[in-house]
Amino acid sequence: MNTTPDSNSLTLLTDLYQLTMAYGYWKHGKADQSAVFHLFFRSSPFRGGYTIAAGLEPVLDFLRAFRFASDDIDYLRTLQGNDGQPLFEPAFLQYLAELELTLDLDAIAEGTVVFPHEPLLRVRGSILQCQILETALLNIINFQTLIATKAARVTSAAKGDAVLEFGLRRAQGIDGALAASRAAYIGGCAATSNVLAGKRYGIPVKGTHAHSWVMSFDSEPTAFAAYAETMPNNCVFLVDTYDTLQGVRHAIDAGKRLRESGHQMVGIRLDSGDLAWLSIEARRMLDDAGFQNAAIVASNDLDEHLIQSLKLQGATISVWGVGTKLVTAYDQPALGGVYKLGAIQDAAGNWQPKIKLSEQLIKTSTPGVQQVRRYYDSNGQATVDMIYNQLQPISGDCTVVALQDATHRTQITASTPYDDLLIPMIRNGQVVADSPSLEDIRNRTQQQLQQFDRTVLRFDNPHKYRVGLESELHELKSQMVLETRQRAKQESQQ
Amino acid sequence: MNTTPDSNSLTLLTDLYQLTMAYGYWKHGKADQSAVFHLFFRSSPFRGGYTIAAGLEPVLDFLRAFRFASDDIDYLRTLQGNDGQPLFEPAFLQYLAELELTLDLDAIAEGTVVFPHEPLLRVRGSILQCQILETALLNIINFQTLIATKAARVTSAAKGDAVLEFGLRRAQGIDGALAASRAAYIGGCAATSNVLAGKRYGIPVKGTHAHSWVMSFDSEPTAFAAYAETMPNNCVFLVDTYDTLQGVRHAIDAGKRLRESGHQMVGIRLDSGDLAWLSIEARRMLDDAGFQNAAIVASNDLDEHLIQSLKLQGATISVWGVGTKLVTAYDQPALGGVYKLGAIQDAAGNWQPKIKLSEQLIKTSTPGVQQVRRYYDSNGQATVDMIYNQLQPISGDCTVVALQDATHRTQITASTPYDDLLIPMIRNGQVVADSPSLEDIRNRTQQQLQQFDRTVLRFDNPHKYRVGLESELHELKSQMVLETRQRAKQESQQ
Repeated sequence: MNTTPDSNSLTLLTDLYQLTMAYGYWKHGKADQSAVFHLFFRSSPFRGGYTIAAGLEPVLDFLRAFRFASDDIDYLRTLQGNDGQPLFEPAFLQYLAELELTLDLDAIAEGTVVFPHEPLLRVRGSILQCQILETALLNIINFQTLIATKAARVTSAAKGDAVLEFGLRRAQGIDGALAASRAAYIGGCAATSNVLAGKRYGIPVKGTHAHSWVMSFDSEPTAFAAYAETMPNNCVFLVDTYDTLQGVRHAIDAGKRLRESGHQMVGIRLDSGDLAWLSIEARRMLDDAGFQNAAIVASNDLDEHLIQSLKLQGATISVWGVGTKLVTAYDQPALGGVYKLGAIQDAAGNWQPKIKLSEQLIKTSTPGVQQVRRYYDSNGQATVDMIYNQLQPISGDCTVVALQDATHRTQITASTPYDDLLIPMIRNGQVVADSPSLEDIRNRTQQQLQQFDRTVLRFDNPHKYRVGLESELHELKSQMVLETRQRAKQESQQ
Repeated sequence: MNTTPDSNSLTLLTDLYQLTMAYGYWKHGKADQSAVFHLFFRSSPFRGGYTIAAGLEPVLDFLRAFRFASDDIDYLRTLQGNDGQPLFEPAFLQYLAELELTLDLDAIAEGTVVFPHEPLLRVRGSILQCQILETALLNIINFQTLIATKAARVTSAAKGDAVLEFGLRRAQGIDGALAASRAAYIGGCAATSNVLAGKRYGIPVKGTHAHSWVMSFDSEPTAFAAYAETMPNNCVFLVDTYDTLQGVRHAIDAGKRLRESGHQMVGIRLDSGDLAWLSIEARRMLDDAGFQNAAIVASNDLDEHLIQSLKLQGATISVWGVGTKLVTAYDQPALGGVYKLGAIQDAAGNWQPKIKLSEQLIKTSTPGVQQVRRYYDSNGQATVDMIYNQLQPISGDCTVVALQDATHRTQITASTPYDDLLIPMIRNGQVVADSPSLEDIRNRTQQQLQQFDRTVLRFDNPHKYRVGLESELHELKSQMVLETRQRAKQESQQ
């Protein structure tokens, strides 16, 4: 039993209603009733055709450290209802203080291409435990998946050029920045400016100097010379403090002196103005001066669309610094993932599928204990994803019913190669899977993207990759919707 | 000297270029040269007419803990340049390991209404120290100011109804959520669902139950009855799991039984569907059943515009749960604050004002050691803000030159009441100001908003509150722009 205070405990990182429900489950003898929850999202972000799963390793870290500390319990003891009486009775708080997680977790690996309605996490075990983890799991997975996806889009727009993540100063809080640096690297960024992310996650860090360096000297040439003297092996000169092309000339002068001392200027950085025109002019000037290998780094509110447009305009930028628009996922700053009950075990030990209705069909949840099967063609290209219910036996020959349109069906033969995407991560509270390195996860993202048609990956009106329910599951869901509606109607007529 | 490793150290929460510049300053004997930096933003977020300053207390916490831990130094030692040699020499790392902050910090109090170009923070002291703090200060102030401003807008739309912050699951990381809960409370929210924010910051926490509670029972009436039995003093029934109005009937039944046992139902919650129509229907049903005091809580992607629209449609919602759109500042997820050098002390000890040019006039920085003076009329209403340079003596009778249009000038007489907004917070590295409670900061926000005309506070095309430069500072800035341009031109002709 944990009775030490811990001001760093993240265990209370949950919505209050998870704890009030937990109290209810405990009080009604349901705390240990088994349930299955799925974490999924309903549409790919940025009006895109795909999403990159991320955040699993931080989830495992959160679960490894999960314990109610004594100061957590002390705090919960202070909460009151509308009559001034405590919300929670002492025996329940004691139960929490002694709680150890005994759940099972299955998850889709980080760096996997995923689609709407596919469970990224499947949590099975005590309904009380499933419930009190919901909010933290959503917080971590929602955000990292969002940023990994944004980074994949930005790096694909850069077509092989390095993309550097520069977002720390505009990120949503300290961990908003750290988590973003991690997820951006998974999505394909080559490095970050965030030194703490470098230290914690081993991500390469990059950076040279800012305008203030130039302003702190009497002139730009003096500032560049001083920088080159300080750090001759890391010289990217920021050229737009006063006049950009004049700055390029000063950088060339500094670069020549660097050469004389046996070093190489890495490049220049543009941070304002017309990046297309300036980069073309700067490239010409650098080439004419014999600096064909000097990089042109550009930054200034870049995103995938602006990078694509600059490339179309012939910009000669070779390294892209992307900050605000990447780390905040500016054009869609939340993924909107949800966590829904799929099934619950009754007193006899039988799993009962569960459903939540909604006026909007797309918000009606899918019942069952779900798994995602991805089928491939003979070239290893992904062709269709099938969500199936492990409570229903399925045969090798399957029919996939499209999620949005039940008339659209795909036949699968037993010999079609496939992967089941949900992998056992935790059994009875213990992590059972090895953690890949961040580098491996980043490589996985790139390999995964190769398995999908370019039309799925494009930015505008992407082709919809086929995802559906296995036909037995589709039938189960349809039947449960009808029955639930019927029951509500009957009740309202009573 | 700090030589202990600290895996929680946030000192490396900085862009690498701050450290490479710091190395340069150190190497050129400039480390202890005094400089002044200002942190400001260039436009109010959400196309609004005002901004609420927030984040100062977390900045002070960051500065109090600032120390390079031995594992920070170990990490920096591993960084290499393009020739495989270390970026930093050992003596510099030793300097960092021994570094203690000796800066002065002046700041505008949290909960103050502020406007573009006004320094929220002014940092004075060793240029090296100013520089390595830049990124963290921006990260903290940018985000909390953004969210406090959003919360002020959302709560003003709610016109006195309670607004609950429900954003944890969609926030940008763990601290993105915690920082958002804190800032949302400063901006006017009444409570949060985030239990950890409640524990850490003393913010009231709220929450009852989710759809999964209802789904885990055989029927909605059973679920409501079980919840009421568990927690009779905290009953807000979520009514839309299957059929919303049927859910309201079930809540009324549960509410009647609560009454019989001597308790009161707090209310119901709507989380989907047409909130205007459903709230009107639900209000009628609740009133008819004798539950005139039962609250109607609504949630589902709300923001200030939707709340305003629902109010116009006669929605009878009395408590607003606001999540994603608030904690991510969905329609503008970054503030874009910057940190610019204003002046530097020369070898003779004289302060030299500094400027950074830009093609865009609005991005040209303002020189000097700045202070913000807010003038009031005889009713205590704020009339104009004047940014002045403490290096230039000013008289009581001043002229304020509008920032965007130098022909627009305001005369101020010496007898006009005013406040200087920047307040001494740190002197020589030590915090010298008392910290207000979060409650006091929240009250300050509301008092501050009273000092501004409603036309400044409205959402659409707000009236522009007058902010300008004191005329001597305006002259200095204009002259420095002309001289710098002139010099760049002469150099390019050489």
